[in-house]
Amino acid sequence: MSDMKKILECVPNFSEGRKSEKIEEIVNPFRGKPGVRLLDYQTDKDHNRLVVTAVGEPEALKRAVTEAIGAAIECIDMRQHKGQHPRMGAADVVPFIPVKNVTMTEAVEISKDFARQVSEKYNLPIFLYERSASAPERENLSNIRKGQFEEMAEKIKRPEWKPDFGPWEIHPSAGVTAVGARMPLVAFNVNLDTDDLTIANEIAKKVRYSSGGLRYCKGIGIGLKEKRIVQVSMNMTDFTKTAIYRTFELIRTEAKRYGVNVVGSEIIGLVPMAALIDTAEYYLRLENFSMEQVLEYRIME
Amino acid sequence: MSDMKKILECVPNFSEGRKSEKIEEIVNPFRGKPGVRLLDYQTDKDHNRLVVTAVGEPEALKRAVTEAIGAAIECIDMRQHKGQHPRMGAADVVPFIPVKNVTMTEAVEISKDFARQVSEKYNLPIFLYERSASAPERENLSNIRKGQFEEMAEKIKRPEWKPDFGPWEIHPSAGVTAVGARMPLVAFNVNLDTDDLTIANEIAKKVRYSSGGLRYCKGIGIGLKEKRIVQVSMNMTDFTKTAIYRTFELIRTEAKRYGVNVVGSEIIGLVPMAALIDTAEYYLRLENFSMEQVLEYRIME
Repeated sequence: MSDMKKILECVPNFSEGRKSEKIEEIVNPFRGKPGVRLLDYQTDKDHNRLVVTAVGEPEALKRAVTEAIGAAIECIDMRQHKGQHPRMGAADVVPFIPVKNVTMTEAVEISKDFARQVSEKYNLPIFLYERSASAPERENLSNIRKGQFEEMAEKIKRPEWKPDFGPWEIHPSAGVTAVGARMPLVAFNVNLDTDDLTIANEIAKKVRYSSGGLRYCKGIGIGLKEKRIVQVSMNMTDFTKTAIYRTFELIRTEAKRYGVNVVGSEIIGLVPMAALIDTAEYYLRLENFSMEQVLEYRIME
Repeated sequence: MSDMKKILECVPNFSEGRKSEKIEEIVNPFRGKPGVRLLDYQTDKDHNRLVVTAVGEPEALKRAVTEAIGAAIECIDMRQHKGQHPRMGAADVVPFIPVKNVTMTEAVEISKDFARQVSEKYNLPIFLYERSASAPERENLSNIRKGQFEEMAEKIKRPEWKPDFGPWEIHPSAGVTAVGARMPLVAFNVNLDTDDLTIANEIAKKVRYSSGGLRYCKGIGIGLKEKRIVQVSMNMTDFTKTAIYRTFELIRTEAKRYGVNVVGSEIIGLVPMAALIDTAEYYLRLENFSMEQVLEYRIME
C-alpha cells in the first residue's frame, strides 16, 4: 500500500459477444496478474461485443491489455463479424482513464506508448483518439469509426486517415483499433414525474452540450413505460468540469417551467468517488475539504 | 487486490507526546510491515499524548499494535507522566474500527482476541469498552478512565472494576489499557453567520443526543473569533445511523428561527467515503445505488 502508486483504468471493447470460449480467451489475460484487477466484463449478443473493465498499475495493465488484444486478433475475424454496434476492429477501442496519481497528460503518454508497442507487435494500424488524438477530427471516436470495418480498407488510404501507428493498411482480419486517454464517463439519469416524453427531450436539449448546454454533458429523453415517467438520460464526459450536482440542479430548474418535479436519479455502472464527494461538498457547503481526508482514498491501490 | 480482503483501522492513543525518540519507537512498528499502513500520527505536547492512525489486515495490524504497545510499556512510566488529557495507561486506549469486509461483530471479536493476547504478553490489565464492553457501564471510556492513572490502583480492586483481561492490579509503570471496537468518528462542524455564541449552543443542544437530539451526535457551540462567526462543533459517532446530511439539515432548520444562516461546514481529519456518498445519494435522490459502483471502493485494499 503506497500513496504514490499510479493507477489507471482501461475499458477495452472487443468484437466478440457471443462465443463464450473466445470471450474467455480475451478476458483471461486480466486474471491472476499482480498489479492488475479485472473489475467487470459484459457481453451483448445483439451487439456481438465484449466490454472489459480493468484497473491496475500502468505497466502491468498495458501488458494485460496487449495480451488480450493478441487473443482477440487470434480468435476474431472481422470479415465474418456481424453485430448492431458500430465497430471497425477485433479490438475496437481501447480507452485509458486516469484513476489515481496519474495526470491526464501522463495517461495520454501511456496510451501513445501502448499504441506504438501494440501496432508493432501485431502489425496493427492504430488511431489515437480523445485526449490522445493527433488532430481535432480524430478526437471523436465516431468520426474515426465512420464507415466501420467494411469501408476501413478504403478509408485509411486517404491521407487524412493515415493511422497514427502501424501499417498504412488495415489488418486483414482484425481491422483497425482506436487507442486513447479519456476522463471517466458517468452515466447519470434523472427521473421526472410526467409521462410526457417531449418534456424530457426539451430538458435534455437544454442541458446537453450539443444544443447549448453544459460542456461535458450528453443527453436524451427516454420514456420509462413501466413506471409511467420519463427520464433525462445522460453521459457525463468530464465530471471534474461539468459537475453532477450542477447538472441535477439545472434539470430541476428547467423542470419547474413545466410544473414537473424531479423524483429521483440513478447512476448506471461505475462512478469515481470524487464525482459523489464533489456533490456532498456542494450541498454541505464544505470548506477546505481534501480527497486526502477520505479514508478509502488513502488506502486504495 | 482482492474484493474480500478484510481491512480494519486502529487509532491507538499513547501517553507520550513530547520526546521524539520515544514517539518514534512507538510509531515504528507501523512502518514497513506488509498488510499495514500508517496513515497518520499526531502528538500534542500539552496533552503529552500520541495518536496513531493505521489501517491494515486484521492479523498484521494486531501484530503491529501489539509491538507498539510493547514499545510504549518499555519507554513510558506513568508514575512520571504529566499532561492535560485524561489518561490511565502508557497505551491508554486502543479502538478498532471496521473499514471493509469486516462487520462490527467481527471487529468486536478481533478486539477481544487482541486484548487477551496483549494482556498475557505484557501482564497488562485491559478493559473492553464501546461495542466490546462486557457491561453497559464500561461502554463509555470516560467511565472506565475516571480517576485516571493516579487512582486506578485502588479503583480496579473494586469488584465492578475488575479488568476483563490480565492481572487484577495495575501494571506498575504502564497502568491499564482500554481496548474495543467502535464505528469511525466523523468530526463535522457547521458554521453560522452570527457572532452570538448562545445561538450555536442552543442549536447544539437541540441536535445532540445528550439533550434530546440525534442518537449518534455529540455537539457544542464554539466561537470562531477571527471569522466573527460561531460554529456547531460535532462528533458523529455512527454516521451510518445518524447521517451527516440529516444533521446538517436539522441545524439549518433550527437556525431559521434565529434568522441565522448556515454559511459553511467542515470535516476535520479522516472521513469514510460512505459518509459523503450517503450525503450525495440524499441530495441527488439517487435510487438503487450500491457502494460496489464506486470505482475506488472496488479497488482499495
